[in-house]
Amino acid sequence: MKIFIVGGVAGGASAAARARRLDESAEIVLLERGPDPSFANCGMPYYIGGEIESRAKLLVSPIQRLIDRYRLDVRTLHSVESINRAEKTVAIRELATGAVATESYDKLILSPGAAPVRPPTPGADLPGVYTLRNLDDADRLQGATARAKRAVVIGGGFIGVEMIENLTRRGLDVTLIERDVQVLPPWDAEMIVPIAAELVKRGVRVLLGTTVERFEQAGDGLRLTLDSGESIAADFVVMSIGVRPENTLAVAAGLEVGPRGGILVNPHMQTTDPDIYAVGDAVQTFDSVTGAPAQVPLAGPANRQGRIAADHIFGRDSAYRGTQGTAVVGLWDHTAAMTGLSEKACQRQQREYQKVYLHPAHHAGYYPGAEPMTLKLLFDPETGHVLGAQAVGGAGVDKRIDVIAMAIQAGMTVYDLEESELCYAPQYGSAKDPVNMAGFIAAGVLRGDQPIVHSADLLAGACDGATVVDVRTPTEFALGAVPGAVNLPLDELRGRLGELPEGRPVIAYCQVGMRGYMATRLLNQSGRDARNLSGGFTTYARVAATK
Amino acid sequence: MKIFIVGGVAGGASAAARARRLDESAEIVLLERGPDPSFANCGMPYYIGGEIESRAKLLVSPIQRLIDRYRLDVRTLHSVESINRAEKTVAIRELATGAVATESYDKLILSPGAAPVRPPTPGADLPGVYTLRNLDDADRLQGATARAKRAVVIGGGFIGVEMIENLTRRGLDVTLIERDVQVLPPWDAEMIVPIAAELVKRGVRVLLGTTVERFEQAGDGLRLTLDSGESIAADFVVMSIGVRPENTLAVAAGLEVGPRGGILVNPHMQTTDPDIYAVGDAVQTFDSVTGAPAQVPLAGPANRQGRIAADHIFGRDSAYRGTQGTAVVGLWDHTAAMTGLSEKACQRQQREYQKVYLHPAHHAGYYPGAEPMTLKLLFDPETGHVLGAQAVGGAGVDKRIDVIAMAIQAGMTVYDLEESELCYAPQYGSAKDPVNMAGFIAAGVLRGDQPIVHSADLLAGACDGATVVDVRTPTEFALGAVPGAVNLPLDELRGRLGELPEGRPVIAYCQVGMRGYMATRLLNQSGRDARNLSGGFTTYARVAATK
Repeated sequence: MKIFIVGGVAGGASAAARARRLDESAEIVLLERGPDPSFANCGMPYYIGGEIESRAKLLVSPIQRLIDRYRLDVRTLHSVESINRAEKTVAIRELATGAVATESYDKLILSPGAAPVRPPTPGADLPGVYTLRNLDDADRLQGATARAKRAVVIGGGFIGVEMIENLTRRGLDVTLIERDVQVLPPWDAEMIVPIAAELVKRGVRVLLGTTVERFEQAGDGLRLTLDSGESIAADFVVMSIGVRPENTLAVAAGLEVGPRGGILVNPHMQTTDPDIYAVGDAVQTFDSVTGAPAQVPLAGPANRQGRIAADHIFGRDSAYRGTQGTAVVGLWDHTAAMTGLSEKACQRQQREYQKVYLHPAHHAGYYPGAEPMTLKLLFDPETGHVLGAQAVGGAGVDKRIDVIAMAIQAGMTVYDLEESELCYAPQYGSAKDPVNMAGFIAAGVLRGDQPIVHSADLLAGACDGATVVDVRTPTEFALGAVPGAVNLPLDELRGRLGELPEGRPVIAYCQVGMRGYMATRLLNQSGRDARNLSGGFTTYARVAATK
Repeated sequence: MKIFIVGGVAGGASAAARARRLDESAEIVLLERGPDPSFANCGMPYYIGGEIESRAKLLVSPIQRLIDRYRLDVRTLHSVESINRAEKTVAIRELATGAVATESYDKLILSPGAAPVRPPTPGADLPGVYTLRNLDDADRLQGATARAKRAVVIGGGFIGVEMIENLTRRGLDVTLIERDVQVLPPWDAEMIVPIAAELVKRGVRVLLGTTVERFEQAGDGLRLTLDSGESIAADFVVMSIGVRPENTLAVAAGLEVGPRGGILVNPHMQTTDPDIYAVGDAVQTFDSVTGAPAQVPLAGPANRQGRIAADHIFGRDSAYRGTQGTAVVGLWDHTAAMTGLSEKACQRQQREYQKVYLHPAHHAGYYPGAEPMTLKLLFDPETGHVLGAQAVGGAGVDKRIDVIAMAIQAGMTVYDLEESELCYAPQYGSAKDPVNMAGFIAAGVLRGDQPIVHSADLLAGACDGATVVDVRTPTEFALGAVPGAVNLPLDELRGRLGELPEGRPVIAYCQVGMRGYMATRLLNQSGRDARNLSGGFTTYARVAATK
């Protein structure tokens, strides 16, 4: 068995190691166009920022180890020029000499990754406009950072946001230009408001809904002209507006690709040619929740796919269960994490959903150091199945999303989350963990115990005619409230019910939704038609900030 | 509907709040023998140690709020003397005056908790021998701590270990006396070795397998005589050898209790009298994995049970799914967490199991600050269902146990853990998360890809006759190895196979199990009968330390 693997990062490296473990006698060739096979590309921004001090740390599997331990035929600085599917051969170019040789394969695994998109904007190919894909790019950007004072990051996705943190760490003035109305587009906009605020607080100039019309050389640096007409000077630019599957080789070989360019594969990671597999950022997979096509460039899925391809080559029936979209990003002390469907994705896919917001502390409030987080849970309005979750805050955010990721994988419902038994000691959680609380609230909505209304609907006027009651204290009310709300503190509500006009629906709210829930119970049992504003004023303010 | 709730902490408070939310008109009486309803008992050690500075922080639901917000009839410093089940009345004593009154109930909820066990040892009731149950106890212990230099903690369970940390934080010399051969008895002994080592490192004198024969007054302090004959002086003693369900009232009323004294309840938390519910530390429940009787004094389950009792009183069919035994304890920067069955519990219940050990880092090794952890996964050897997990380390330990807790709740298998999609960015995890790794290893064992052997069996001589091969580097080998092992570094193994005697089974091992796995694959495909030592030399050394 001779296996040819094109691309040594994540998916390719996983496939190679797995193949060797499955078959000691196989001939395994690992081809990498760059100088380094199997480097930690997720660490590059932190290498540029100096948090990871040594470049060697990023070389997770040095060549010599791949040779000695896995007996791989590693060929760096080689590229595959073409595939002859009929003869099952590849034409390989040695980049240093340009020499091309033909070699046969029994099975071919394509793991070419995805290339940063460079838009057709005039000047986008000028020397000072960088993208970040491999260690050479990282070295160049590190060099540029050392000499510079002002940088512009274009695109506020994962890499953009991580680059901003790291460029700021190196003392640069940074401007972010993002075409979308929010940073971190996989998250729903209102969830990301604290992240955007943190960027501003740290001195980053954030330009949303903005594009660059042209780049020009200006002295030692660059001058960017924006669609607003404004002009910005920068020593260099990081272009991180997204990636495009590296599908040239596959397309030339007649393999099918999806509408967004991802190589089409079956759950065994076979392309339309059963002897050719494809894995990682270059492929189109499917959403594990909905089955819809998905193209998600994440390292975890790439690793799983590489393993599955190797398994299948050696006769095992391993199959990919789809990409769940679990992701996390850190920005100073802030963490944003998500899993499953976002609200935007539900809407895009016309999927019915209900949602709840909560703002719990990451551990017991009576123990010092509790950090707040915002958690949004999306679930099926009929069955209660968990569809997705997003959390933004500090410590403990990744834990809750990982816990909910398991719930989604297992097909659990919000009723199951009510009953989850999670770690509790005051430094770690609460007797009612944020995940339990999310379950309580969501299940309460589905059981009809807690009719809710959402801030977006309130802001859109859908609740006009209702009496809006702020059940917080007068002090809290005075610091900011929903326009038109009357203040009736929860602990006085029973005695002051007469102050609410009869015959009109009531919307109750508090700071985070807990007192509003109690008020809603109380009001509905007193014959009112009351609903709780999910997530309270905290969510309201975030949603209002996105309008 | 008149509901009488006996006991205001955790279960009782949850039941009261839930009952009010479900029925605005119910009469709800909350009786508490102590001065404070609903205090955070899990925080008491940290209040004594000064980490939680204000006593008020521990009063999670002050009386006035329970009255104003939940309209509860709160009666502190009252106790229930007896229950007349035929007439559905309780005799209530006002502790200040001794006055007894009779009151009727429609439903009674018993949440009396569990009392610290005081052994019949001579002198165990001397003034300087403290237990920790309520805030008065905490105040007394805080006072004693301020005046003292030397303390003895008897019992190394959750409270004992937490007290040790906090007494040490206050500058005391602490001796731990534990009857068992290990601290933290819910965990398996080899998992707890690093915790025991940390205690010693921090200057705690740890006496395992030791009991006290008598306590005597000695000057201002105490003198303890141990079963070893040794005598120890202490300014005070904390007795934390366990708790006993507070079942006096229930037994006197003719309600059934289990062999360990827990009040018997059905999944709706009804006792053998359907109008009387019992919740929390006083009840006997059942293990959610095996269905076996369980008596687990944990706050999370108590809260869930209180909610379920209230639900059922108001006609809902909520049912307790059993106690999973998820628990966590912190000790300086160390964390020990567990969920589901331990190996000891499997053996006690004669449950078939397989296990694997691994020692991953809590996040990507290439990012600074990765902390090591040890993870032990127990699973069904036929079906692969996850039965339990334990983790010990620093950061990220509680996360992995919470993730596996979800897997157990959902009835997932080790094959599911292979495919879990968890948060990955270098600060948070790895592309192959420790949970995935546990799944890979366990599934590899079940599929026959990775035959393993356990250190306990190796130490017990079960593998005599096998060649033990240490596949680490000579440097690692020189620092300590399995007695009788030969050193053949993995990266040289292919070329040196001839050095292994033919016809004998081979046990391969490395530092944590990864290289040992690769060696096992290589050897078995070369016609040898090889097994990997699960968890490598790290696990071996821990297991050897328990022998």
